[in-house]
Order: sequence, then C-alpha cells, then structure tokens
Amino acid sequence: MQPEEFRRHAHELVDWIADHLAGVGELPVVPEVRPGEIRGQLPSSPPEHGEPFAAMFHDFQEVILPGMTLWNHPGWFAYFPGNNSPPSILGEMLTAALGAQCMSWATSPAATELEQVVMDWLRQMLGLPDSFVGVIQDTASTATLVALLSARERTTAYAAGTTGLAQAGAQLVVYASREAHSSVDKAVKLAGYGTNQLRHVPVTADFALDPAALERAIITDRDAGLTPACVVATVGTTSSTAIDPVPAIATLCRRHGIWLHVDAAFAGAAAIVPEFRWLLDGVQFADSLVFNPHKWLLTNFDCSAYYVRDPDSLLRTFGLTPEYLRTTHDAEVVNFRDWGIQLGRRFRALKLWFVIRSYGVEGLRAMIRRHVALARELKGWIDERPDFELMAPVPLSLVCFRYHPRGVEEKELDALNERLLAKVNASRRVHLTHTRLDGRYVIRLVVGQRGTEREQVAEAWALIREAAAALA
Amino acid sequence: MQPEEFRRHAHELVDWIADHLAGVGELPVVPEVRPGEIRGQLPSSPPEHGEPFAAMFHDFQEVILPGMTLWNHPGWFAYFPGNNSPPSILGEMLTAALGAQCMSWATSPAATELEQVVMDWLRQMLGLPDSFVGVIQDTASTATLVALLSARERTTAYAAGTTGLAQAGAQLVVYASREAHSSVDKAVKLAGYGTNQLRHVPVTADFALDPAALERAIITDRDAGLTPACVVATVGTTSSTAIDPVPAIATLCRRHGIWLHVDAAFAGAAAIVPEFRWLLDGVQFADSLVFNPHKWLLTNFDCSAYYVRDPDSLLRTFGLTPEYLRTTHDAEVVNFRDWGIQLGRRFRALKLWFVIRSYGVEGLRAMIRRHVALARELKGWIDERPDFELMAPVPLSLVCFRYHPRGVEEKELDALNERLLAKVNASRRVHLTHTRLDGRYVIRLVVGQRGTEREQVAEAWALIREAAAALA
Repeated sequence: MQPEEFRRHAHELVDWIADHLAGVGELPVVPEVRPGEIRGQLPSSPPEHGEPFAAMFHDFQEVILPGMTLWNHPGWFAYFPGNNSPPSILGEMLTAALGAQCMSWATSPAATELEQVVMDWLRQMLGLPDSFVGVIQDTASTATLVALLSARERTTAYAAGTTGLAQAGAQLVVYASREAHSSVDKAVKLAGYGTNQLRHVPVTADFALDPAALERAIITDRDAGLTPACVVATVGTTSSTAIDPVPAIATLCRRHGIWLHVDAAFAGAAAIVPEFRWLLDGVQFADSLVFNPHKWLLTNFDCSAYYVRDPDSLLRTFGLTPEYLRTTHDAEVVNFRDWGIQLGRRFRALKLWFVIRSYGVEGLRAMIRRHVALARELKGWIDERPDFELMAPVPLSLVCFRYHPRGVEEKELDALNERLLAKVNASRRVHLTHTRLDGRYVIRLVVGQRGTEREQVAEAWALIREAAAALA
Repeated sequence: MQPEEFRRHAHELVDWIADHLAGVGELPVVPEVRPGEIRGQLPSSPPEHGEPFAAMFHDFQEVILPGMTLWNHPGWFAYFPGNNSPPSILGEMLTAALGAQCMSWATSPAATELEQVVMDWLRQMLGLPDSFVGVIQDTASTATLVALLSARERTTAYAAGTTGLAQAGAQLVVYASREAHSSVDKAVKLAGYGTNQLRHVPVTADFALDPAALERAIITDRDAGLTPACVVATVGTTSSTAIDPVPAIATLCRRHGIWLHVDAAFAGAAAIVPEFRWLLDGVQFADSLVFNPHKWLLTNFDCSAYYVRDPDSLLRTFGLTPEYLRTTHDAEVVNFRDWGIQLGRRFRALKLWFVIRSYGVEGLRAMIRRHVALARELKGWIDERPDFELMAPVPLSLVCFRYHPRGVEEKELDALNERLLAKVNASRRVHLTHTRLDGRYVIRLVVGQRGTEREQVAEAWALIREAAAALA
C-alpha cells in the first residue's frame, strides 16, 4: 500500500471513526454471538495474494464490529471502564505512524523525555510527593508484578535474583486484603513467593483491609521465622471500590521494614479532584503505586502509571545492558527498558499528553465529579426502594446492589439476581457485571465512560426495575 | 473534543501521516538532541484549562518529531527493525477507535476469535505443526518470561507457584547459549531461578550453541543433584543471527525431559519463505516458540507471536478466574487473559489481519527475500575489500563486519571501529549499531525496514567507506 492509497483509506476510516464515536450509543453495547460464530465466518488459511483494503474494511464492518463488545458505549457500566477519547485516538494515530520503539533514550529521545514530563504532570495532579518518579507500564497486573519483584529483591538485599529464590534462604510473605485484585495472587505466584505465602487479610464491614488483622498476621509470621516482604494496599477494590486504610498500613510497613505497594488502578484517577485527594492519604510513605489512566482518565488502553519512591530498587531489579544496547549517553539518561519487564516499549506518553492538554486538569476533574454525582444519584434511587439493597458503601462511582424483594429468602437471592442481571444485559442497551461480597451475588454498576450521562444511568435503573418487576 | 472536531483534526493528521510516510527518507534518521533538551522545551506543570488541538499538533511537529529516532526510515539498519506499514497503521486506528479491552472472550468475542484465526494463519505460514496454538504477547521479553515461568511450573509439577520456589525443593537450572538475548538473563532472574542457575553454554565458531557442550552441562548438573528445567534455543541471535541447532537441542531436551523454548524473535519471520523454512527445523519438538511480527513482518509494535505445544501448561501457570471475571461461556471459549501475565489486552490481531491480507503471503515473502538479497550483496562488497572483514556468517539480512586496515593492530581495532560507526551515524542518513563477538567490537548492519532498497544499502556502504578513508 503506497502513501497515497493510505491517505485515501485513512480518510475513509476517519469518517467512519467520527461517525462511530458520535453514534456508538445507538448500537447494542454487547454483541449477540455464540462462541465460534465469528471464527466460522473467516477463512481458515491466509491469502496468498494481497487484497484491496476495501475487502478488509468491509469485513471489519460486517463481521468484526458486530462481534465486538463496545467498551466505549455510553451504556457501559461493567467491570471498570476502559476509556478512550478523541485526543487519545489522535495520539495513537501518530504513535502508530512513527512506529518508534522506545526502549532507550537514544532510540527515541523525545518519547523518553515526554514520558518523564507527563508522568510528572500526573504526579502533581495526584498530589504525590515530588520524590516520586513515574514510568508507564502496560497494565496494573504488570505494575503489581513489578512491585512484587522489586520487593522480593530489596528484601533479600538483591540476592534472590542472583542466587535464586530456592537458595536465598528467606521465606518471604506477602499480604493483601481478601478483597484485593486477582493480579496480586497471580503476581505472588509468578514472582515465586508461592500463593501459600500470600496472606488474605480479613476486611472490616466496609470491605477495607483490617489493619489490626494485618499486624497480627505480620507478627505471627515474624515469630514463625518468616520474612514479611510486601503489603499490597488497595485504594478502590474491584468488587466494591473499598479503600484500604493506607496511613495505618504504611505505619506498619515502616515499623516492620516491609515494601508497601498501593494498587489504585481504578480509583487513583479520582485523586486529581481536590475533594478526593484523601484517597491517597498515606501514599507518600508507600514504595510504589499504580493507577490506570486507561481506566478513568480518557486515555486509550494500554497506559498504566507506576510510581516509585526509590527508582534504584527498580533499576537493581530490572536493569541490564548487554553490549548491543549500549549507547553514548547511558550514564546521563533514563532508559525506561530498565524500569520494567519488557525491553520493547510503545510511545504511550503521546496520547496521555494529548489528553491532559486537550481537557486540561479542570476538564478531567469535571468528568470525575460528574460520574461520582451520577453514581450517588443512583445510590439515592436504590436507597428509596425497599425491594433493593445497597451491598457496599459508594465512595466513588461504583454502586453495588441487589434485588431483595420481601419474602424471598437469602438462599434464593443469588440466583434471582443472576437472572435479573442477565435480563438487564439482554436489553443490549446497557452492560453491567457482577461480583460476590461476603459470599453474596452482587450487581455492580460503575459510572465511568466518557459519554455516560444522567440519561444512561436513568435508563439502566429503569431496565433494572423492569427486570425486577418481570421476575417478581 | 466532539466527534466533528475529531473528524477535522484526524483528517489533518492523516494528511500529515501520508506525507510523513512518503517523505520520511528525507529526514535525518536520528535526532540531534542532548539529554534534557526536549524536556526543557515542555512546561513542567499540566495545563489547568484545555487547549486547542492545533497547539499540541504544533508542538508535536516542532518539539517532539525533531527529537525522535525514526525507526520507519529507509536508512534504518540498527538493532533489529521495528516495522510498521500503511495497513498496520489503519488497523491501529480502528483498534484505538474501538478502545476495546480484550481480556476475555466475552469482553470482545470478535477480537478473541480473530486472534485465534490470525495466529493460526501465521502458524501455517511458518510451517509449524497444527498442534501448535498461538497467542499474541506484547514483546519477546514477555514471551520468554512466560516460557520460563511455564517451564518452572511444569518441572515442579505445578507446585512452585503454590508452595513458593524456596519451598519447592528442586534446584532448577536454565540453559542458553552465551549469545542468547539479554531477555533470557532477565527472565531467569525475574522467574526466581536466579542468574547463578543460568548456564551460558559455549558456542561453535559460527556463534551457534554447541550441543555437545549443552549435553555436558546438563549431565554435570544432573549429577550434582540439580534439575535442568529449560533450554532456550535461539534462531537468529541478536548479535549475529546465529542459528542454534534446534534438532540436536530438541533431542537432548526430550531425552532429559527439559522444556525447550525457541527464541526466533527476529529470524522467525523468514520461515514464511520456503527456502528459509529450515530455520525452524526441529521446532516441532519445542514446547514454546516466540517470533515478532513487529520486527520483520510489517506489523506495528507491539505484536509478538507466542506458540505453545500444550496450552494446558500455560493455563495451569497463568489461569485465574475471580468471581468478577466469570462469564457465561467460560467453559467453551478461550480467555486470553489466562495465556499470559497481563489481565488487560489490546486488540492487536486487527493490524496483523490487515497486514497479512493487504500484502498476502507472497508479498511478505517478497519483502523478506529482497532484504536477504540486499544483505548478501553488501556481504559481497565487503568480501571484495581487503581492509574490511566479515565477523560472522550472514544467514539472513544481518551483516557483521569491521574495518581492519593493513598494519593496524588488533588492540586498536575496537576504538577505530567505534569511531568509524560514530562517523557513519553522524551523517544522520543511515543508522547502524554495534555489538561484540568474541570480545571484538563489531558493526552490525541489518536490512529489514519496509522502505529499504538497494539505494539505501549502497548509500550506507558508501558512507562506511568514506568514513574509513577519513580515518585511515
């Protein structure tokens, strides 16, 4: 494809994308496809000869799009959001056009320095100490693994990576609340601690980690000759956005010399709003923090912001310079390849730069405030209904609730709410997901998509009430 | 930014991108910037209020672009290439527009099934057995870590992830040639084996792993009570594209029950050409294989193809389904989040689909053949010159050489060639990098960029000869 053909096709795509962004709300938010149905429509072998772009764009529209779950739909209330936005898409276009590989400063100086600049902008927006230094990781799963690896190395005086965990001698233990994200379990497994050494610390009534229980667990392990290595505190759990008491946890970590990693993957974005700044209280004492601009800050996936208090612990864990990667300025510059798992790195700072400049800090704050206000309004509507119950506090924009009509017994409520959720989602106008809290099936509705307004929240609530009425 | 503003700005970008793709060869391939120079031109704090897109696009052109190393330049001969192409950029545009998060089948059915389809297309193109199953990882570093984690788990009967490596009992050992990529060292460290347990196996004169030395190392470790867990064979080393003898290595691995991972990050792409199919001889006996379509198959970074013979070993290492991720069809579908480290996943199959369909298999083969032919032509030019010497065989499109004029002693050659390389790169018309082979400083020239033709290779050779003449 020559540049002039690209020009023609790309203009077509731009018009399609602009129409899509304007009209996505009219499409079904989830597809109606059975497993294997898309695959069955595609050739099982690659084409020997090149095809015109029109053929693939046709198939994209006729086969792929009808099989996509539309994360950018204003009726998206599922999981946590995966935001995108017009300026972010523009950033991705330029990133793709340059095709730069940003592993080292020398392989893309402007990409490295822009990443430093926007990560420092975000740091200021969150009110983090100026000693914190940031790097873009792909996902919070990766960032949490990076934190657990750094903790493993620091705790063993950087010996485990050389001698091996089997030989390092220490029996390392990790702590997180039983509401912490599954990526903590996965990282504990992958980093070699072993899931047997992950303590799922009990939570208080609001689903936040109980610091007294944490302290007991740490002391028990210490007394048993084990070595507490890392605590993962969650600011905004996945099930209910519970906020672990970071100040109390940080005090324990400092007292016992334990790495403190804060997982604020979703909720961290809210800390750019002054009235939610408290979310990050105590984080100044953490060793690492992750939050995802790709969740609730209008930036395309993937873009996960990872901050550390001491970059040296990162560099000693991940730094490695073989001869073929040496460059002239290595001693003076930051080579972000030494700040994480991957050698290769996309130019992800560009979209984040466009987003922050396009909306300004006040524009991003306004979006967060709007989403939180909408969630609180929904909470009010649920509160008024005797046949619905809230299942967790609503500190931000996630509402956990269930249908609980009079006379229905507890043991029937899970199945009832599972049916209710299926009915609501079958409308394909909105999409919600579920979780379990205290073992109970709970419906989650998170307000966090760029295009979501009061209209969609009201529609979701109407669909929920209708489904409930139909099931009654 | 509203959809209509997006439409206007995106059309501007498309014209800029089309011009850039057509004219990138006229720009300097590397920027002339000092560390900190880009950062110094950018505001140190984020803007409170939103800015018009024109302001950021202006800064992109005036500040960022002049600070970028242009990986898509036809004069790019450095590292390994990082390809992009017009159809791949079109794919990235649509991926960004949808903003889908493809962690599970249910969160994007078409993305999951298209990934299955294109990974099977690539499998056929490489001539891999139909029992091999593929998944897109971000980078080869990640894929190699995934392989080493899978090997760790399988070797310990999937106990290490639960009990912890310190408690699992076995002393696991990993083997790779001393020419293997640094990502192997990094993965050995991160996965908890410890770099002390990585055996850098000697190589033969062609820089390929010596299987006799491998066998001796395995037996020595076995006799010492250690447990050989994984061998990483490299098809196309980074320094010189040496090809490890995979058939012999595979035999050893089968005999000793060792996981065999094949790192074909760059060279694997060449196996789509029938006359280079031999590159993957023996790979049918491997447990895992990685190669990067983002290196030499016209697909934008990131897109790393990872194949396994037994997906069960992946699932048992990486699978984890918390309640909030359960979906209706989990038992019938592939959830690619369980096939690697990250939970969140971009829709990367789309660009790869566009690339394969746009060029067809024959178009991609033609590009590989052209690059290899150009490299062989350069090899011929170097062979003819008594004052230059080839430093390694040229099985594909990487030429390793040095300037060695009569009468200059060995101990002076490193510094001389370092000066020569600096002089050539100072032209900013071409970009080459270096390595060391047998301790000697060697200049690497790899032909692998989409736009690279005979003209650029001839220009590079002319610049090399001029620099040599000036230094003589």
